[in-house]
Amino acid sequence: MDDLPEIHVLRMGHRIFRDQRISSHVALVARAHGASSVIFSGQYDERLIHSVQEVVANWGGPFSVSYAKDWKQKIRELKEQNFFVLISTMYGVNLLEAIAEIRKAAETRDLLIVVGSEKVPPDVYELGDVNVAVTNQPSSEVAVLAIMLDWIFGGAELSKEFKDARLKIIPQEKGKNVIKIR
Amino acid sequence: MDDLPEIHVLRMGHRIFRDQRISSHVALVARAHGASSVIFSGQYDERLIHSVQEVVANWGGPFSVSYAKDWKQKIRELKEQNFFVLISTMYGVNLLEAIAEIRKAAETRDLLIVVGSEKVPPDVYELGDVNVAVTNQPSSEVAVLAIMLDWIFGGAELSKEFKDARLKIIPQEKGKNVIKIR
Repeated sequence: MDDLPEIHVLRMGHRIFRDQRISSHVALVARAHGASSVIFSGQYDERLIHSVQEVVANWGGPFSVSYAKDWKQKIRELKEQNFFVLISTMYGVNLLEAIAEIRKAAETRDLLIVVGSEKVPPDVYELGDVNVAVTNQPSSEVAVLAIMLDWIFGGAELSKEFKDARLKIIPQEKGKNVIKIR
Repeated sequence: MDDLPEIHVLRMGHRIFRDQRISSHVALVARAHGASSVIFSGQYDERLIHSVQEVVANWGGPFSVSYAKDWKQKIRELKEQNFFVLISTMYGVNLLEAIAEIRKAAETRDLLIVVGSEKVPPDVYELGDVNVAVTNQPSSEVAVLAIMLDWIFGGAELSKEFKDARLKIIPQEKGKNVIKIR
């Protein structure tokens, strides 16, 4: 994966009780599907952050997790650092239309994928470089993130090797085989 | 999408309170990403089923939702009807290895994709035709389902047109445009 673009994922908003599992799935998908980090915003949720760190400790990285109190500010900051900012929204341009531009940007720039929670404030559409819908249908931000990563990486992320893992799955036709590496 | 395979999605287990959002995301993804139906199991959740029907009424179909009290029984039943059964599990054969066999099966047979909740009983691995992992890493069943559908349909599902919708999104570079069709 060394030639592949660096992609970071920002989760807009988080409510500690209601969003716990979805935010956790966003982080799991970001890591498993080849992104370099997840940035949470909304309510600060120590347990959520800790759970992501545990996954990295057990299953490897590199993958980092951080928190930004103000996600709009964070987007502006990363844009100033020349990140190409992709806003995930069901109202945006279809991925099939947008993918060429995204891949081209990814050749020279780091990417930020911004994924929403239920309600996205309308002014977010002005913040990104491109507003992208995976299907223009009600779907799941978790699924949409995975599909975007898969299309940008071209499937290479599906066989990514993780470093410094304690645990590793040996794929099986039937049953489970998890080995302890250290 | 008329030449594409029929794919049905079975959700193993459901706990009304804890799994509501994830089960709902599984159904949204099944529909938006081209499957023909979702079959829920576990606790019977009328609100969940109703919410999926509402999405179909508003955004179109065809897409059906049903409930099976005993998901193992349901898998056996569909196998007898010659369905090719794909069990989604992080311990299985990597999708990149399995995809050719799945696509081949899909040429002549309907597919059932079985997605888990947290704990999957080990005997499920004996029930399917193939046990498939998208990344062999902890991920999200919602994301994994979307990636499987995308690989099987080869991206054609991303521009699927839905029938009998009341609402339709006109993709926008900035902002929202939802039209009422009827």
